[in-house]
Amino acid sequence: MSKIDYKQAGVDYGKIDPLKILAQQAAAATAGNLARHGLTEVAASRGESAYLIDCGDFYLASITECLGTKALVADAMRAITGKTYYDRIAQDTLAMAINDLITVGATPVSVHAYWAAGGSGWFDDAQRALDLVTGWRAACDRCGVAWGGGETPALAGVVADDRIDLAASCVGLVRPKARLTLGERLGPGDAIVLLASSGIHANGVSLARKLAERLPAGYGTTLPSGALFGEALLAPTVLYSPVTEALAAAGIVPHYQANITGHGWRKVMRHGKALTYHFHALPEVPEVLRFLQRETGSDDRAAYGNLNMGAGYALFVAAADAPRVVQIAEQLGVRALHAGTVRAGEKQVVLEPLGLTFGGDDLHVRA
Amino acid sequence: MSKIDYKQAGVDYGKIDPLKILAQQAAAATAGNLARHGLTEVAASRGESAYLIDCGDFYLASITECLGTKALVADAMRAITGKTYYDRIAQDTLAMAINDLITVGATPVSVHAYWAAGGSGWFDDAQRALDLVTGWRAACDRCGVAWGGGETPALAGVVADDRIDLAASCVGLVRPKARLTLGERLGPGDAIVLLASSGIHANGVSLARKLAERLPAGYGTTLPSGALFGEALLAPTVLYSPVTEALAAAGIVPHYQANITGHGWRKVMRHGKALTYHFHALPEVPEVLRFLQRETGSDDRAAYGNLNMGAGYALFVAAADAPRVVQIAEQLGVRALHAGTVRAGEKQVVLEPLGLTFGGDDLHVRA
Repeated sequence: MSKIDYKQAGVDYGKIDPLKILAQQAAAATAGNLARHGLTEVAASRGESAYLIDCGDFYLASITECLGTKALVADAMRAITGKTYYDRIAQDTLAMAINDLITVGATPVSVHAYWAAGGSGWFDDAQRALDLVTGWRAACDRCGVAWGGGETPALAGVVADDRIDLAASCVGLVRPKARLTLGERLGPGDAIVLLASSGIHANGVSLARKLAERLPAGYGTTLPSGALFGEALLAPTVLYSPVTEALAAAGIVPHYQANITGHGWRKVMRHGKALTYHFHALPEVPEVLRFLQRETGSDDRAAYGNLNMGAGYALFVAAADAPRVVQIAEQLGVRALHAGTVRAGEKQVVLEPLGLTFGGDDLHVRA
Repeated sequence: MSKIDYKQAGVDYGKIDPLKILAQQAAAATAGNLARHGLTEVAASRGESAYLIDCGDFYLASITECLGTKALVADAMRAITGKTYYDRIAQDTLAMAINDLITVGATPVSVHAYWAAGGSGWFDDAQRALDLVTGWRAACDRCGVAWGGGETPALAGVVADDRIDLAASCVGLVRPKARLTLGERLGPGDAIVLLASSGIHANGVSLARKLAERLPAGYGTTLPSGALFGEALLAPTVLYSPVTEALAAAGIVPHYQANITGHGWRKVMRHGKALTYHFHALPEVPEVLRFLQRETGSDDRAAYGNLNMGAGYALFVAAADAPRVVQIAEQLGVRALHAGTVRAGEKQVVLEPLGLTFGGDDLHVRA
């Protein structure tokens, strides 16, 4: 099968970026408005995964994130198995927001749902609606957040027919303020603990959809384990906030945290500092990602540079804390691996077992 | 021209409501999660326009709202005048969130943008992108909020081709807590001050779009004033937070507040109490709404029951405060009218000048 890359898969970041930069500049210019309320923003949070406001004795964190196109996979799989999978993609949607919010050290406290359907008819399907609500609530309970409300508009002409655009906004508190993890303490000698992913999560889905179009059996293709390709794609994203909350309860404050999403392992070096992230070990690669890599003809550079390849979340912690961090995560049912070390040196991510290096120029996720 | 009603216009609330009720019940059941963080929700905020958490010395308010289908009007008008109007609909989107958030007494402090396009190509249009960013920033500055960040995904297959789904999430603080306006003090004798709308705002747009389809000149139809129908529809929603902040600064805490949106004047009686809202005067009706009423063959019951008809926001205040409330709003360029009085009696809205009454059964916006 011929190679598929991201531009072919329909996401052209070059076209989105100019607007993004314009928006980031305009957004940054609004910081001064907070002075009217006796507040200040945490300027270093711009460019990080959640926005922070200094409220005196704590920081207020907020974020909005969307699922992307994974609902299209659920819709296609329903025709094959009869299941809706909306409980799973509900969890994915919340994970997109919550797993980003916690990177700054915040405890997520409330979420709002944004479920925009392509028409009122979408809501007729009682099973799908029930699964969506059930999965959303279960994820809230797992993360200890209150589901505050949301919007369920019917947007014929804006959202595609019989589709739904799923997003979540999340608010959190960094309290006490010492829990803030914007990377000031990130430095040489830190251990890198990787928390396992469950599969593709919600990034790389466009590529997977493109592949499904090319496979003779599409999403119904059987993987070596016997699982269906589409069903494996729909393994819900791991929610990492139980781990970060447990670390806080144990008195462990990471030096930095990164949610491994749209730029794969390049996300590991998202902090501005010039540091080398050296990995001596790699987590087990979920079958569906191995399959995706092979069938799209992606080399390791393309795979690890765009997909999570088994690492859903990176914790940068004091070396002495690494064993306890691993233990705490595992006790919560989240596999964890002390996989690497932060070293002095130029900005790069080195995957020693693969002889692969990503340089600082390979990542542009900040304004 | 034959009559057009809401079901014909494509929004069937009967189909959305079962999901909404299911979601509201599941959401309410997550309240207990806050105890893990030493927090409690303000239960009375469920069913109100923003969600509130008690954080000790203040309340945290949050909300997510969407623009709806008004972007379709902007897109159609561009073909006629060459202007994008995305600066205006950016303001509309923020107004949907901010005007709801302030009803509970909150000061809006930060917003996140959610701009989900039907494909990367949407972002190619530099003028439209610039207008969207410029209008968004101007609205943030007007309301004194920090634009914290956002999402700009390209969602081919989920969002319709060359369309964009615009939404906003907003976080606010009720501080001091005495600013809370959940209606405990709402009662007989209160004055009702109505703040003027600029036109249709972002509710009733489906009806307006349906009408445009039937008019020979569509959105290009000239109104008596010479304005084009489509351009008049795109008058941006008034942002009311400068008024509510100025009231707070003047020491005036409303007894209750209602943002007049999807259910028109029926929204006036959204509080649970059995009270009669008696109007002796009505605000001037914007030309575009008068036109919409006439051309769709709507009687006053349909018009006032679904559209704002000139009243964008209702403030329920101590009678003695009414003149100052009007004065403060007008000084900020927002027209205001002491239009009515709260009376003891059954739950209803009485529009005396029109001989029109809406009963409590006419409104079901709470779970």
